[in-house]
Parts: sequence; structure tokens; C-alpha cells
Amino acid sequence: MKVDGKHFRSIWLDEDGWSVRAIDQRRLPHEFVIARLTNCLEAAEAIRSMLVRGAPLIGATAAFGMALAMREDASDAAIDRAYAVLVATRPTAINLKWALEEMRALLRPLGPAARAAAAYARAAAIADEDVVINQGIAQNGFAVIEAIAARKKPGEAVNVLTHCNAGWLATVDWGTATAPIYLAHDRGHNIHVWVDETRPRNQGASLTAWELGHHGVPHTVIPDNTGGHLMQHGMVDLIIVGTDRVAANGDVCNKIGTYLKALAAFDNGVPFYVALPSPTIDFNVSDGRAVPIEQRGGEEVATMTGRTADGRIETVRIVPQESPVANYAFDVTPARLVTGLITERGVLKPERMALAATFPERMASAAE
Amino acid sequence: MKVDGKHFRSIWLDEDGWSVRAIDQRRLPHEFVIARLTNCLEAAEAIRSMLVRGAPLIGATAAFGMALAMREDASDAAIDRAYAVLVATRPTAINLKWALEEMRALLRPLGPAARAAAAYARAAAIADEDVVINQGIAQNGFAVIEAIAARKKPGEAVNVLTHCNAGWLATVDWGTATAPIYLAHDRGHNIHVWVDETRPRNQGASLTAWELGHHGVPHTVIPDNTGGHLMQHGMVDLIIVGTDRVAANGDVCNKIGTYLKALAAFDNGVPFYVALPSPTIDFNVSDGRAVPIEQRGGEEVATMTGRTADGRIETVRIVPQESPVANYAFDVTPARLVTGLITERGVLKPERMALAATFPERMASAAE
Repeated sequence: MKVDGKHFRSIWLDEDGWSVRAIDQRRLPHEFVIARLTNCLEAAEAIRSMLVRGAPLIGATAAFGMALAMREDASDAAIDRAYAVLVATRPTAINLKWALEEMRALLRPLGPAARAAAAYARAAAIADEDVVINQGIAQNGFAVIEAIAARKKPGEAVNVLTHCNAGWLATVDWGTATAPIYLAHDRGHNIHVWVDETRPRNQGASLTAWELGHHGVPHTVIPDNTGGHLMQHGMVDLIIVGTDRVAANGDVCNKIGTYLKALAAFDNGVPFYVALPSPTIDFNVSDGRAVPIEQRGGEEVATMTGRTADGRIETVRIVPQESPVANYAFDVTPARLVTGLITERGVLKPERMALAATFPERMASAAE
Repeated sequence: MKVDGKHFRSIWLDEDGWSVRAIDQRRLPHEFVIARLTNCLEAAEAIRSMLVRGAPLIGATAAFGMALAMREDASDAAIDRAYAVLVATRPTAINLKWALEEMRALLRPLGPAARAAAAYARAAAIADEDVVINQGIAQNGFAVIEAIAARKKPGEAVNVLTHCNAGWLATVDWGTATAPIYLAHDRGHNIHVWVDETRPRNQGASLTAWELGHHGVPHTVIPDNTGGHLMQHGMVDLIIVGTDRVAANGDVCNKIGTYLKALAAFDNGVPFYVALPSPTIDFNVSDGRAVPIEQRGGEEVATMTGRTADGRIETVRIVPQESPVANYAFDVTPARLVTGLITERGVLKPERMALAATFPERMASAAE
């Protein structure tokens, strides 16, 4: 999408033809910095440190990481080493494992001389496929928004609430949860987004608000505590969130706090949609309770980074020095609370049958 | 309760016999500063700026504010003026109005010469009564905790989750939600508290964690998004929160985000208790939808104040400069989600009949 009028993706091949460029998302919304990744370890560190984040973008970055590895050493051992280093960076997003298995399956049968070029080509294709998938999500989600808009009085905004960042910064372009929003906005619909701040890492306040603002989409940042009150008062027409992994039964693993919003949506009759590219479905996990939940460092809870009135970036502690903290990164929203899964192949019921029937090839490869 | 071994209340009469001392809660947890209030306008400003906060403490501060007013001018007009200034400071906590009406009803029939002394005496009594009420809440809530502890394996902690600060800092002493916790801890029970950070003002991270820590109660600070996940995994035995106003039907108005925790508790079979002194019941409000919800300034959402690694207190902006924010301070938890109301006269069902039967004198005065 656009940043100050210029089109960007979140990750791309540098003009040098081999190094990888990515927006450093740790610096947003205060600074717009482009990072350069020159080897597999840097790609792994970019994922681990959340320079890049978001399940689809993690997958694309891992694919480029494999390509960077092959450029330096295209041996069988190097494939296994790169796979091991990259897969260990983050535990929850299934796209990481999916992309790495794609790459490994492609590279192993090839002779070492062919591997680097093939890896770069497949990484670029994974990135391009993500964009195409998200355009499909945009179309299918747009129909949902259009139906709600049709029931509104003329001029009334459609109010969408979203949690965390499932925007174009979380993918290669368009985003998942935001794709229908951008499309509706670009087509002239009056759409307004309630942006959950998303503690502790503030991806909503830092990233979603930033990208919506730079694209010109009306939005309001709210504390994570606020959504229930808004839903009780008819101020939310629908929720759209992304996901890090959808279990075979339709349970949705997403950023911590998503479950609370789904409960409030259910309690108030607000439709709760999850937008996802098919690589996010994990047919090997029968229900959400089996998804490993990452615990991250306590400093994400205990401190906050921002910009002072005179422009300095400072990190401040907001919890007493002696108080322990806990930092669970994700939670699981049971399928029973989900209205629909917005995928590139349509809006599905969050049910095993619907997922299996719509993505039989993913189901088949999972069973192998 | 104790601060570094010394007993404090949140508000008290200074040694000079007329000015009022209060802990400046805006400076916690980073600095422990005692403020001095010398007239009615300073008392009003202390409430408005949240130097003091918490429904019972707001009531006590308003009562002392009336006493400070009478000291300067004990005319009928001064009573009305002080009432008007103080009642306009915050809209949601009913204790404010309750305390001011108590004071006005006491002062009006008296001759001006008697008013200042009577006002100081009644303000001190309101503060003392709050402490006695909270000790009653402690006893009644302790029975709830004890019953849960009895079902635990030996040595297993009882895990209580709380939202915002309904601790001794929100009252004159003991707190409401924390009163049973302090009592259980002091009696040697193994009790651990999950402390919701409570964005946007961080009363949990700043105040509840601080006061529990200084009293020695084991606790862990968590983002507001976390509680649902913990409840799904059996890591919360009960929730106890405070309230700013309970409607006649048992609906509970409390800090924004309370409703989301109540939904998660209900969904996971976790008991959800609300601790309240009887002045928090508003028999004039038939259900929670009629409680006015305060909207506060956007800077509370857009910025965060804390301490840098080298000890400076800094305020940093965490939302893009151009992004609008919304700041609703409270929400309403429907009575259907509340397991029980822990009052100084027992643990009640959140129902009109139970409230009316237990507090007939409050009901009668409301009907006047």
C-alpha cells in the first residue's frame, strides 16, 4: 500500500539483485527505516526481534532467508542448518514452517549449483502469491462489508474493529484483516476502523494506525479494554482480525486478547470475522488447544517505547521494578465464537468440513 | 496498609489540624509523594486530576473538600458553591455525590459558626466508616477465598485476577477488591494476584502492583489482553474487582475492560465477584445502561509516562501524531455475569431484591 504517496511492500529484493530489504517495524510509527538483510542469520534475527512480524510476512522472510543461505552455501547440510535456524525463531505462526517446508522440498532434489537461483525464485513467488491471496481476501471480505453498508443509512460509516496488526505490514501487501477495508475505502465506501492498541507490543497503535493513516482510512485508536463497551452501544458493525494459525476445526489462534473481543462480539450479536490466507490453516492441529502459545520477554510488558514531546525516542518502565510480569503472546478463540473465515476462496464456516472441502490440497499435504 | 513497614492511609488530616494530606497517586509507582490540600478548589482539582482516585477515596476527599470550604466561608452560599465545584469533578463514581449530599444535609441546618467543626468531624467519620466497611468486605470476601483454598492441594496458591485498582489507594484503607486478599495473605494463605495493567491509565501496573508489592503479596502484572487466556487454562480461581457504581438491579459499572473479563469468567466457569461498600449502590439508577460513562482526554491513550533506565520520568507518545483516539473510562457489566457482590453486610446475589433487603436504609433515602 502507500506510504506518503509511494507504493511499498513490507519486504522486497534489493536493486543489487541478492540482498533483501524490509521495513523495520520496530521503529514505527516514529521512524520509517528500511533494513537490509544479507544472510540467513540476519533474516532469522529479523524474525526473532520482530523487525518483521505477522504470520504471512514471517513466512516470506523465512523463504528469503533460505535463499540468502543458499547463496553462501548450497550444500544439503546448509539446507538443514538454515531450516533449523529459521524455524526456531518463533513458535506460533504456522506460515513459518509452511514456507520453510516448501523451500526445503524444492531445494533438496536440485543439484547445489541450481539451488540459490531456485530459492530466490521461489521466495519471490511466495511473496507474490501472498499478495494475490490477500487480493482474494479483499474481494471476499468486501462482499461482507458491502452487505453491512447496504443496511446503513446514507452517509453512515461502517465501523470495523480490529485487533493487533493484520495489515499490509503483517503480510507482503494489502494485509489480511485490512485487505477488505482498503478495498472498501478505495471504492469510496464510508468506512471507519476502531484500532485496538494491542498491548503489550502495541501493534495496533504503532502499525495499524500508522498504515491506515498513511493510506487515508479514517480510524480511531482505543485501549484494548474499550471494544466491549463500544459493542454494547452499537458502535461496532463487525470485527475483522487476522490469525497466526487456524486449527482444522476452525479454532483461531491470534494475538492475545482476540478471544475477549470474540466473546464481546458474540454477547452483542456483532459478526466476528477472521481473515486468513490458506497457508495459515494447520490441518495437523485438530483443535486450538494444541497450538503452542509463545511466551515472550517481560520487558515488553514492563516497558514502553515512544517519542518525547521534543522528538527523542525513549523507553520508560511502567511497572514497579520489583513486580513480576507475564507475557503470553497469543490466545485461542474457539470456532463457536467465529462468524466466518474470510479466505482467498470465499467466506467459510469455521468448521472442519468447510476447511477440508475448500482446501483439499492443503489437507492432503498435511496428512502426508 | 503498609508502605516500607509504615502504616499509611490514602488521605488524612495533617498535624496542623486543618489541612488535608493525600498520597499523590499520579506519581506512583515511581515516586512516593504526599500532597497537601489547603482549600476546596485544591480538593476539587485533586479529584479532577486524579491525584486521588477510586470511588470511596473520591467520596472522602470531597467530604474533606467541604470541610476546607467551611473553614474559609461557612455561609449557605458557600455550601452550595463547594457542592457545585466538587460534584462537577468526575461524573461516574456515585460516592462523590453521596458524600457531598451527606455533608450538605448535615451543614445546612447548623448555624454558620458550627459548620466548619461539624464538617471536619463528619469528613473524618466518613473516612473512618470507609475503613470499617472495607474491613467488613475483607471478612466476607475472605470466606469466599477460604472456600476456594479448601479445594486446592496443599501448598497450591489461590489465583485471584483483579482489574484496575480497587486497593487501599482507591479507598481510605484496605481497599475493596483487595481487602479479602490482604486479609487472606495476612492470615497465611498462599494467595497470588494477576494484576491487569489497566490501560489507558495503568492503575493496575502503577498502583495495584505497587501496593501489593509493598505489603508483600505475591502478584504478576499482565496486559489487559491476557486474562481470557489464563482463564481458559485454569490459571485463575476467581476474579474480584471493585466498582464505581452498582445499579439497583446489580449491574456493575467499573473501569473500562471489566466487562470483557466478566465475559471470559462466565465462559470458563470462573467466579466473578465485585467488592463494594454500600455507598457505591445507586438505587436511583434502575439498571447499568443509565450510568453516565465519563470520556476522558485523549492524551491518556496516546501517551505513556514512566521511568527511564537512568531514572528520569518521561512521557512518550505511542500513537501516531495524526491518529485520533477515544477514551471511555468505564463500562457496565450486566448482573447476569456477576457471581456475587461482596459487601460489608455479606455476599449478595446481584439482584434488586437482595440489594434492597440488605440495605433498606439506602433504598429508602434514594426514594426520597
